[in-house]
Amino acid sequence: MLATLMYKAGDVRVENVADASIEQPTDALIRTVRSCICGSDLWPYKDLEPTEGGARMGHEALGVVEDVGAEVSNIKKGDLVIMPFAFSDGACEFCEEGLNTSCLHGGFFGLNSGIGAQAEAIRVPQAEGTLFAVPSTDDGALLASLLTLSDVMGTGFHAALMAAVEEGDRVAVVGDGAVGLCGVIAAEMLGAEQIIIMGRHPQRVELARDFGATDVVSERGEEAVERLRELTGGHGVHAVLECVGSEQSMLTSMQIVRPGGAVGRVGVPHYKAIPETATTFFHNVTVSGGPAPVRAYIEDLLPSILDGTIDPGRVFDQTIGFDEVPDGYRAMNDRESLKVMIRP
Amino acid sequence: MLATLMYKAGDVRVENVADASIEQPTDALIRTVRSCICGSDLWPYKDLEPTEGGARMGHEALGVVEDVGAEVSNIKKGDLVIMPFAFSDGACEFCEEGLNTSCLHGGFFGLNSGIGAQAEAIRVPQAEGTLFAVPSTDDGALLASLLTLSDVMGTGFHAALMAAVEEGDRVAVVGDGAVGLCGVIAAEMLGAEQIIIMGRHPQRVELARDFGATDVVSERGEEAVERLRELTGGHGVHAVLECVGSEQSMLTSMQIVRPGGAVGRVGVPHYKAIPETATTFFHNVTVSGGPAPVRAYIEDLLPSILDGTIDPGRVFDQTIGFDEVPDGYRAMNDRESLKVMIRP
Repeated sequence: MLATLMYKAGDVRVENVADASIEQPTDALIRTVRSCICGSDLWPYKDLEPTEGGARMGHEALGVVEDVGAEVSNIKKGDLVIMPFAFSDGACEFCEEGLNTSCLHGGFFGLNSGIGAQAEAIRVPQAEGTLFAVPSTDDGALLASLLTLSDVMGTGFHAALMAAVEEGDRVAVVGDGAVGLCGVIAAEMLGAEQIIIMGRHPQRVELARDFGATDVVSERGEEAVERLRELTGGHGVHAVLECVGSEQSMLTSMQIVRPGGAVGRVGVPHYKAIPETATTFFHNVTVSGGPAPVRAYIEDLLPSILDGTIDPGRVFDQTIGFDEVPDGYRAMNDRESLKVMIRP
Repeated sequence: MLATLMYKAGDVRVENVADASIEQPTDALIRTVRSCICGSDLWPYKDLEPTEGGARMGHEALGVVEDVGAEVSNIKKGDLVIMPFAFSDGACEFCEEGLNTSCLHGGFFGLNSGIGAQAEAIRVPQAEGTLFAVPSTDDGALLASLLTLSDVMGTGFHAALMAAVEEGDRVAVVGDGAVGLCGVIAAEMLGAEQIIIMGRHPQRVELARDFGATDVVSERGEEAVERLRELTGGHGVHAVLECVGSEQSMLTSMQIVRPGGAVGRVGVPHYKAIPETATTFFHNVTVSGGPAPVRAYIEDLLPSILDGTIDPGRVFDQTIGFDEVPDGYRAMNDRESLKVMIRP
């Protein structure tokens, strides 16, 4: 089967590898219907050290179940399923609390796991707790939105929940990538009154407005902080959705949050320390977040997708086949593409 | 009148100063019934640079109202009042949200404010929003407990709320000072099932047990982390009350919190950065807290004091007059005294 491997920074190849198959009685085997490239895949694309044999890439997929292990009973051959970016047994104390990313028998797809979703087929560990069956469809727009429940829509929703967005709040979304744009959708769903997108890419900002953003801050650094304060009556926002993970974005996030407010961070941290430790103490600021337990959010978000209330699939602005995957990485890295979908 | 001044680290004097008086129509003048020395006063006691004229010390008091300004109508001469460690107008957007320590017209007593509570009389700015009248009493034990609503009981309660303590939780309290001990009371009030006090001072640990602590961890550093994990089934606690503010205590706090858990920090930060940034991201740990809006908590806590359910006044283990204040600082700094009350 075809699979995507990254050999080092900037070196992505699609190669023939051994077919995926059931290895454990708790596994399922799925044939990929849609996969995609994630903003977080761009971190290794920038800095991965040479890796012998290559690292399997991809952690987001919609698939059709081909086979299940002996201990998997809640999904069956032929089901269309959402595969969250982390696998989890759905039964441990953390899963029961809805924190599937801390599952005692779980893990993350892609990179270090040996299992990549940017492939024709995927072995899914802990399938019973991981996969979520949805009604079959061949509606391309719906498939795109369902695919976002693998990661970006659930992650944007997590950022909003961890930033404690409430009815009537002022919210800032730091980052105009797919997660940031889904964060705008989530803030709107939770009743935010003002949603400020911090970004400068014209098409992304336009999509953010379609999704519910009320204001745009295109400045950077101190100017961005100043502009945001002007837009919020001087005190900053109740909730910041940190959807980048860089040192600068985290600093900005901590500088624009209102006293008593919260920063929900979902960008994988590429900073050494949370900045502004003392200021945020004196302002009683909360910092929360981490890898989103998207499995737990599918039930919350699916109805709004099925009834057309939200349409997060619009974050995909390019669809490619496997032969174009290396160029898809390049296009996202060059910010030519917002998010690239792979249709086998 | 007599007032306490700190001239530099280790140099505390009680001196005759100009009598406090009404300066603004929003002021009240109170005669001190009880004041006390705070653990946070020990930070400048360790490191205050020489200060010309000395810094007025103290931010906790019970007093009797002697006079009020023209714009103060909710308290009157003769009322027994609790004076929270921060003054606040009670009317701005932050006060209305219960975050009085971020009041737009507020500030903190002691040190840099020019107003110290370790004095015979105190000018209270924004008296209408700041002071809280309670039933008059000359019951010494009750007065002691009421005095804790100025700071330590409200601060311990804030730590527990910011650490999101819920019914059935496992909780750790880092620090066996007065705030930590009040944190034990708060965790017990909020229904924690396991309350682990991290401390090694025999009398304090005994008092913690009286207040509801179920376990004691006397080890330090890595050994403390290991011991705590053993006590909690390996995963750490849902909620950590960080009641010290040192680099070591913050590190320990971040190391003992369970995935999905929260650290409520109320110790004034003497660390440069929140440690374990990446680990706590991957574990979805929340960090929250700051100066407690104790004014907002008086209504929640007062009934439990008046009906005897809680008795936080037991944190005072020494009562002195003004002449003994310098030695009171020394005794607390040497950990001879847990918390020193001043009775004029």
